[in-house]
Amino acid sequence: MTDLHFACDYQEGAYPSILKRLEETNYDHTPGYGADEITASAKERIRNACAAPQAEVEFLVGGTQTNAVVIDALLNSYQGVLTAETGHISVHEAGAIEFCGHKVLTLPSSEGKITAGQIDAFASAYEHDGNRDHLVMPGMVYLSQPTELGTLYSLQELTAISRTAHAHGLKLYADGARLAYALASEENTVSLKDLAELCDVFYIGGTKCGALFGEAVVIPDPSLIPHFFTIIKQHGALLAKGRLLGIQFDELFRDDLYLKIGASAVRQADEIRNVLSECGYRQTLVNSTNQIFLVLENSRMKQLASQVEFSFWEQADDNHTVIRLVTSWASKQEDTEQLVRILKTL
Amino acid sequence: MTDLHFACDYQEGAYPSILKRLEETNYDHTPGYGADEITASAKERIRNACAAPQAEVEFLVGGTQTNAVVIDALLNSYQGVLTAETGHISVHEAGAIEFCGHKVLTLPSSEGKITAGQIDAFASAYEHDGNRDHLVMPGMVYLSQPTELGTLYSLQELTAISRTAHAHGLKLYADGARLAYALASEENTVSLKDLAELCDVFYIGGTKCGALFGEAVVIPDPSLIPHFFTIIKQHGALLAKGRLLGIQFDELFRDDLYLKIGASAVRQADEIRNVLSECGYRQTLVNSTNQIFLVLENSRMKQLASQVEFSFWEQADDNHTVIRLVTSWASKQEDTEQLVRILKTL
Amino acid sequence: MTDLHFACDYQEGAYPSILKRLEETNYDHTPGYGADEITASAKERIRNACAAPQAEVEFLVGGTQTNAVVIDALLNSYQGVLTAETGHISVHEAGAIEFCGHKVLTLPSSEGKITAGQIDAFASAYEHDGNRDHLVMPGMVYLSQPTELGTLYSLQELTAISRTAHAHGLKLYADGARLAYALASEENTVSLKDLAELCDVFYIGGTKCGALFGEAVVIPDPSLIPHFFTIIKQHGALLAKGRLLGIQFDELFRDDLYLKIGASAVRQADEIRNVLSECGYRQTLVNSTNQIFLVLENSRMKQLASQVEFSFWEQADDNHTVIRLVTSWASKQEDTEQLVRILKTL
Amino acid sequence: MTDLHFACDYQEGAYPSILKRLEETNYDHTPGYGADEITASAKERIRNACAAPQAEVEFLVGGTQTNAVVIDALLNSYQGVLTAETGHISVHEAGAIEFCGHKVLTLPSSEGKITAGQIDAFASAYEHDGNRDHLVMPGMVYLSQPTELGTLYSLQELTAISRTAHAHGLKLYADGARLAYALASEENTVSLKDLAELCDVFYIGGTKCGALFGEAVVIPDPSLIPHFFTIIKQHGALLAKGRLLGIQFDELFRDDLYLKIGASAVRQADEIRNVLSECGYRQTLVNSTNQIFLVLENSRMKQLASQVEFSFWEQADDNHTVIRLVTSWASKQEDTEQLVRILKTL
Repeated sequence: MTDLHFACDYQEGAYPSILKRLEETNYDHTPGYGADEITASAKERIRNACAAPQAEVEFLVGGTQTNAVVIDALLNSYQGVLTAETGHISVHEAGAIEFCGHKVLTLPSSEGKITAGQIDAFASAYEHDGNRDHLVMPGMVYLSQPTELGTLYSLQELTAISRTAHAHGLKLYADGARLAYALASEENTVSLKDLAELCDVFYIGGTKCGALFGEAVVIPDPSLIPHFFTIIKQHGALLAKGRLLGIQFDELFRDDLYLKIGASAVRQADEIRNVLSECGYRQTLVNSTNQIFLVLENSRMKQLASQVEFSFWEQADDNHTVIRLVTSWASKQEDTEQLVRILKTL
Repeated sequence: MTDLHFACDYQEGAYPSILKRLEETNYDHTPGYGADEITASAKERIRNACAAPQAEVEFLVGGTQTNAVVIDALLNSYQGVLTAETGHISVHEAGAIEFCGHKVLTLPSSEGKITAGQIDAFASAYEHDGNRDHLVMPGMVYLSQPTELGTLYSLQELTAISRTAHAHGLKLYADGARLAYALASEENTVSLKDLAELCDVFYIGGTKCGALFGEAVVIPDPSLIPHFFTIIKQHGALLAKGRLLGIQFDELFRDDLYLKIGASAVRQADEIRNVLSECGYRQTLVNSTNQIFLVLENSRMKQLASQVEFSFWEQADDNHTVIRLVTSWASKQEDTEQLVRILKTL
Repeated sequence: MTDLHFACDYQEGAYPSILKRLEETNYDHTPGYGADEITASAKERIRNACAAPQAEVEFLVGGTQTNAVVIDALLNSYQGVLTAETGHISVHEAGAIEFCGHKVLTLPSSEGKITAGQIDAFASAYEHDGNRDHLVMPGMVYLSQPTELGTLYSLQELTAISRTAHAHGLKLYADGARLAYALASEENTVSLKDLAELCDVFYIGGTKCGALFGEAVVIPDPSLIPHFFTIIKQHGALLAKGRLLGIQFDELFRDDLYLKIGASAVRQADEIRNVLSECGYRQTLVNSTNQIFLVLENSRMKQLASQVEFSFWEQADDNHTVIRLVTSWASKQEDTEQLVRILKTL
Repeated sequence: MTDLHFACDYQEGAYPSILKRLEETNYDHTPGYGADEITASAKERIRNACAAPQAEVEFLVGGTQTNAVVIDALLNSYQGVLTAETGHISVHEAGAIEFCGHKVLTLPSSEGKITAGQIDAFASAYEHDGNRDHLVMPGMVYLSQPTELGTLYSLQELTAISRTAHAHGLKLYADGARLAYALASEENTVSLKDLAELCDVFYIGGTKCGALFGEAVVIPDPSLIPHFFTIIKQHGALLAKGRLLGIQFDELFRDDLYLKIGASAVRQADEIRNVLSECGYRQTLVNSTNQIFLVLENSRMKQLASQVEFSFWEQADDNHTVIRLVTSWASKQEDTEQLVRILKTL
């Protein structure tokens, strides 16, 4: 077994201050379901970080759960959700959205992204279809920042999507499972405040960004989803000891930690990208966050696999494979340097 | 605010060895979704504790979630679940079972329990109803051990229920949210091994019994629920960093900790029950686990509330209220002694 | 086999003018899904009969279907429907409401009815429950006119229910599967206009009241349910050749036929009730519509069964059975006279 | 308004013998829900026509309803259904399948069809995916005969699909909304007997093939779907006066009428196809059943629209439109001749 781990960004535990705080508060007695003061503090910090003083903030446990709960809460029973065909809700959630009764309406995607133009075209086609009453009505747009492929929506792109969606009466929801790595990217132009202004709902990922688990749902205008708490409970998504989530996000948003926690991961990913570029490796697409998609001949892939843990992404052709290397907030500089040395001599 | 907390059994964090283990393993790199070795060890310990070497064990995050996932997995799409009208799934889960499409079929309950006779009568009535094809077909029985009211099914009662259910083709599922307090009760006659022999599925509660969160689902005969992992994912109930659950249950089942962890809570509850009995307090029902249901005149209730945190249970009449006192694995002997003193002089 | 049929009110086909009109229009070419002129005429006639000129009227095929579609359309995803425990949706629809994700919340009923007081008490208890976010939120009230037991809500009762429901933010929906028999009853005080004023939605039953099949849903304020057409389609409840429903209701509402079509059935039921009363038969409850519930010794029941077709209702005790006799718009006076003769000498 | 109607095949009423039989039986008293003798006769005739003596036959009202009920009955709760991206369930059912909790998994289609090879590739990819437990498991294949585009599966193609599906543990279901037009096509090689041998479930369409409404579901091995009747009821799809469906199919299968009823429609469609071909019209695809897809310059389309009713299919480009002409069992030869004359001189 190798000691170099670049397979994904949820292999480690939590940022150390989180574990420390769990320990300090272990015997505190607090009311359940997030009605405690630490959770209140965490929510206030997130509202401040998003410059959204009226926002409702609720903490859920995981990403698929959050997507299912938010989408079911935002849509009317007969509506569907628009997404890139590569979107997580479309391919990797075992039908969790359909389980709630909603169709996932897919758009072709380029580098994991969809455009305002595509949304406009889809919504217009629906509106002008003489048989639209027999179709699934699009009710919202789902996208992720960064995307499944590590790419970023620019502020301009997101603004256009937001305007277009709203012009067609569609809600906009952003999945921020890896949001810390977007915020830490030099190319990023979308702030938390921008997300709060442009999205109807978005979530700030904890699981992949320094927490043991947990995602913070932000609803800038809470009147949009009455009884969200009950919807969470109905979906089996309410954590009894809610303060566990409060503690984690209170730490992640203390002194703007969340804005910085992805920096080392992105910097290390950049180092890897640099050597790949220098050595002439083929990447399927180059992004500026913490994921790297690399095409290798099968023989070299096997050689690399004996030294480094990575993820298989897809078969490129009979002789080549696309693999994924991922860094995280916990990746060690020395491991990255070791990986770089290996890549140079592969 | 008072410092005496007897409101519920999920106010504190985790048993100390769990936090220690989380710390020790924090930077380990393990595969996600429970495919790690710690989780494998936890499962094996539970299989051993249940004397169920073939059992599938899966870890979920919370109780309502576990009930929804298991019940949806056990039932065919057109079947409903039989339960006491006081059952948690019937009253306190915000419709999580109906959300999955299943009707909750209620039976009157005595002290929180249902009987083999009731199940037999219900199932027979269904089977003999000429219009049964227009009714919801009962597919399983849900009960909890201990019940919502802290009472216990005896081995004899549970054996009769299991036989009756199976004779009618119904599955039997036991909710063990507070199972540690049943196992620690002197009156208890139902072991983990008994549960594994009598139930088609049961869960061993962690959240209220020493874990930060988590419930261990035990399926003695795994062929009963093919693709249970996918069902968990579909319900948004799959934890990315599965080892967090593995760690907690590996600790809870190290050296039979789970069998002992409820003992101090039950002993302290007994001390409280004794003084209530001595002083002539009225209890709505006396059980042998960690919950106490007490009827107080409203004026005395207010007096008590100024010194002790408890839960409001229900209005008994215009002048009396039923309150609930609960002890937990983390309750301190000195707090209980202080409560006893207060009750003596109230 | 007997030739006297009093088992139910959906054994026969359709009122003759309906069959005639089906024949006359058989080769007409009309657009599908109810976009034809006959359907438009039927809707207009119903709006006039209900004095509800703005109402949306939609035609569905059957009663359970209508209940499921309307309830799902009226409720938010996390809400439940309040009904008498004897309500059709609670006991005889195979879980069709839960299939749509909604809990059926039951109230004890007296003679098949519920009261404004019960609704007020339930809704108030919910509103004042400190844990209400963990409960199913009541979103509407379901009742039927006449009830499953043939009894009628008076205008005063229905007005009180409507006010109470609306005061608590609950919608009111009336199931009129047998509405023609209510409208034809001498005791009836609730007109179609009253229903349109007091209910958020109600349906005018066709299947049991002269049509081959079909129920007319009336939504006095259509803004209450946007995209109802799509909801119908999503539930698989949209009839391709919509004009078949239009034709039937256009005939049923031509010259106020629907207001009169139940008269002969009620008159014949009255004749039966009179002889039962004269001869000292025991009725479980006496109503003024087209259903009669009769307690018979088992031996007499068998004797009657050899001459008359009726329905078994329930076992009263070891020696007695409750049976149901039902008349319909198609019942023949001579058959009723024959039945009366038999009852006199049984 | 024009008197030439070629817009769709559900504009007319029913085959005359059906109306006659409805009239003859109008005052018969029969038990509800299909438990009558006429329905029994219809089922037996269908079993004979399919050479499937053990088959369960159930009658539903409409196509979308039938698809939703059958697919929900065939799939486990966590499974999805494979279909051509042009399949009716994918695009024109307002999300009725997702409403039941199931994902529609789409395959690219050629002329409305999918191939055994595509199914094999999809299922194999699923089976070999290391993350398959996070994906929607394919549980069945849906296809229609003829397809939405009027094309036919050959016996060879359907046999290959059946073998491939079953080899991967997938059920096969055929939607026969227009099956009479397939059976009447000279190119057709798939008999009712073949469908019963190759499919797990299929339905024989009535609505578009001579009935007022109704589809006959055939389950060659009834043990495949226990409690299908209750599932129908749960979906709100059970017709109270079931004999109405029995009567229609008893007539449609008397003297093999169903095998012949599409013949005149197909012959007339052939006449139209011939003239289109002679005159050099562009068809998007030529099939051998009762639908014709024609590309017209917009100006000619408008000219045609002033004389003939057809359906708009899709915009081909800025200057051209695809329209659809459809014949039915009720199309008159003289109307077709008139249409042919118009097309010759357009």
